[in-house]
Amino acid sequence: MELLKQRIRQDGIVKTEDILKVDSFLNHQCDIILIDAIAEEFKRIFAGRPINKVMTIEASGISIACLTALHFGVPLVFAKKAQSVNLEGDVYTARVESFTHKRVFDVILSKKYIGPDDHVLIVDDFLAYGCALHGLIEIAEKAQATIEGIGIAIEKGYQLGGKSLRERGYQIESLAIIESMNPQTNEVLFR
Amino acid sequence: MELLKQRIRQDGIVKTEDILKVDSFLNHQCDIILIDAIAEEFKRIFAGRPINKVMTIEASGISIACLTALHFGVPLVFAKKAQSVNLEGDVYTARVESFTHKRVFDVILSKKYIGPDDHVLIVDDFLAYGCALHGLIEIAEKAQATIEGIGIAIEKGYQLGGKSLRERGYQIESLAIIESMNPQTNEVLFR
Repeated sequence: MELLKQRIRQDGIVKTEDILKVDSFLNHQCDIILIDAIAEEFKRIFAGRPINKVMTIEASGISIACLTALHFGVPLVFAKKAQSVNLEGDVYTARVESFTHKRVFDVILSKKYIGPDDHVLIVDDFLAYGCALHGLIEIAEKAQATIEGIGIAIEKGYQLGGKSLRERGYQIESLAIIESMNPQTNEVLFR
Repeated sequence: MELLKQRIRQDGIVKTEDILKVDSFLNHQCDIILIDAIAEEFKRIFAGRPINKVMTIEASGISIACLTALHFGVPLVFAKKAQSVNLEGDVYTARVESFTHKRVFDVILSKKYIGPDDHVLIVDDFLAYGCALHGLIEIAEKAQATIEGIGIAIEKGYQLGGKSLRERGYQIESLAIIESMNPQTNEVLFR
């Protein structure tokens, strides 16, 4: 998606060969017009699928998933990262390791909001190692929901998350796939 | 807002005299059509204000804030609940006590994304004791931003958060203000 790549080139900050900061427009401050265009693109790509729910994980995936759900006219459900006192009872859980936050946490989704009748589009802002995505997939599979597709804004193509998930047969559509980054020049090379 | 009150009566679950679960449509599974109507109502109420940014706190405020930002055509910025390795450097912080999660945490917002030129609309899903809201207000005030208004979906009117903030002069608009709840009958009485 050229608009997103342009914006990454313009406003992304390459901190290291592995860390790209996009918090001025994607996951801290959010350019809603850009995110709406991302959502519209997911709608275009997955238009033929019988999607009845958009699924993501808190917190930075929510804005993209929210606008994607609006374009599809279906509900959004977001998995939570820790046990909440308001989320007792029957939940699906998956254990996820976060490289960003350098910790392991449980991902939780109430059994009431995902089940065998659901055809979900999983959406997230980043795909690197794929840990969060594995957690969401694990929950969808435990619930016997059908995963119709996976929409990602930015994928770090040089890491193995996307490759291993595509080999498992999932249709992952990433709107900007990064081949490499140079912290000296702030250059981002896309696939 | 009658649509929201109807939905609370229909799908809200009164767990105790103080705990209302709305996670089937507002903050776990999200009915995006309803949330879009909530956002449209905030746009109607605050239309005359020179709002250039919508502000909230992760995670459950994001979906409402995201669609509100879309209606205003302005960016969204959401405060984060814990220090992230990708959020180093200059940040505004406020200490917040959560009654829901029974813990104290820091709320963080990068100094790059809020400043004296900003006219913010603060948005959140719930107002009870007002702790999270106090944190957002503290950050906006530290940044010398102008708080143009505060939009809340559901306020627990019998708790003091809204009262004390209104006494401080903030325009808080809550779309459903709960007077009392009965866990025996699942009845919710609105103000």
